[in-house]
Amino acid sequence: MRIALGVSYNGQAFEGWQSQASGNTVQDALESALSRFIDQGPVSTICAGRTDAGVHGLMQVVHFDTEVERAESSWVRGTNTYLPDSVAIQWARTVPDTFHARFDARRRRYAYVLLSSPVRPSIEAGRVGWVFRPLSLTAMQAGAAQLIGEHDFTSFRASQCQAKSPVKHMVRINIRQRGPYWHFEFEANAFLHHMIRNIMGCLIAIGTEQQPPEWMSTVLQARDRDAAAPTFSPDGLYFLGPVYDEGLNLPTQTAAFDWLPR
Amino acid sequence: MRIALGVSYNGQAFEGWQSQASGNTVQDALESALSRFIDQGPVSTICAGRTDAGVHGLMQVVHFDTEVERAESSWVRGTNTYLPDSVAIQWARTVPDTFHARFDARRRRYAYVLLSSPVRPSIEAGRVGWVFRPLSLTAMQAGAAQLIGEHDFTSFRASQCQAKSPVKHMVRINIRQRGPYWHFEFEANAFLHHMIRNIMGCLIAIGTEQQPPEWMSTVLQARDRDAAAPTFSPDGLYFLGPVYDEGLNLPTQTAAFDWLPR
Repeated sequence: MRIALGVSYNGQAFEGWQSQASGNTVQDALESALSRFIDQGPVSTICAGRTDAGVHGLMQVVHFDTEVERAESSWVRGTNTYLPDSVAIQWARTVPDTFHARFDARRRRYAYVLLSSPVRPSIEAGRVGWVFRPLSLTAMQAGAAQLIGEHDFTSFRASQCQAKSPVKHMVRINIRQRGPYWHFEFEANAFLHHMIRNIMGCLIAIGTEQQPPEWMSTVLQARDRDAAAPTFSPDGLYFLGPVYDEGLNLPTQTAAFDWLPR
Repeated sequence: MRIALGVSYNGQAFEGWQSQASGNTVQDALESALSRFIDQGPVSTICAGRTDAGVHGLMQVVHFDTEVERAESSWVRGTNTYLPDSVAIQWARTVPDTFHARFDARRRRYAYVLLSSPVRPSIEAGRVGWVFRPLSLTAMQAGAAQLIGEHDFTSFRASQCQAKSPVKHMVRINIRQRGPYWHFEFEANAFLHHMIRNIMGCLIAIGTEQQPPEWMSTVLQARDRDAAAPTFSPDGLYFLGPVYDEGLNLPTQTAAFDWLPR
């Protein structure tokens, strides 16, 4: 039997999603909690999108196989008992044995929350990026527009990226301001390693008018990581979750969406 | 010369505001940073309202005396260098020598952020209270209305409270819902120790229909701590700041106001 789970987590205390020898990753915490709840040995999960150290997840989706039968609400409440405060399963669904959390994801969505203020974050430290200069919405929108569509995103790709192809399809980038907080939302078929943090570095260079909006095209066309701005902080990055075919009928929102400034 | 500072902090990692032998309080962190910046021995601050362990501050105000002259922006940036990530000075102003952060505060404002959801918090753990049952807005509003005005709040007072009088004037209680998040805002001339957390316990008992709205009056009139609900969690409690005479011209909002769900 194959089970899918929706998982939310605050990435501040973790060394990213993917299991490591240290044991201090979200996957380690989740698999440890699941195996304690099931009580039949180790459990292996596959996720929709791995996140880096310090990056948060609002709706990560994983799948795993088990012989154990439990009510869907029991998977949620039982496993959450064994998870640290900063991780919580939001829902559980029995899915077809052919379902694959990663390969079935048609698109992925991320948000970046950025504080634009002369004073650094405090209450929200670790959960927002920070820029002390004011930002131009129209300049950033003009820059972002140049990334929409199918492109070779090599300029925004980390050297350690394992993706087979640097060609990705960016479906949309929405930018909104709420007081001093800026909310960026990205949707693409998939993202390269560090791609959003590298795009954020460039959008901020454009928003603070260190570069003109057209610079985004120059960077994109260079297909060279050195053409782009430095990789921006992971603090404000949230994996909003994968988009699956509607027929699978998996939940797409968590409570925490309403927490982010929008 | 007397300086006033506006200070924001995430209370999760601190044993409250007030200085303790452990040194692990917000006041300890602030005074240590100020004395490092001034570099002329210890600095003593007086605050507008002490907060408990785990309670956050959006706009705490403190004052202190110094012979050292610095630009207002220099007080902010210089001292923030020595503060931990979770604390940041928002503004600094030179004030009359007669200004007193505590005695001059005409009123105080607090917010409580509550997550109403079958699943416990994760991303926002430590920064919201949690109730797994649904809440009735009209029932809570009817209950809250009975607290408005001048009353003896003995039933909502912690045994260790040091206030001279239990009589306080509650100016307003606003309750709003945004998705699964509930935002409660309280304004009074002053608050007793644990007063808001005790009121929150009662509002939740009413909102979940374990008690009728009229029960709030019964609790109030009992003038007995045992009449009220248990003290609710500090996690979702934010000191929004004191209200001073407008003539003092002190800033009243911080960036982080826009972060809270409202």
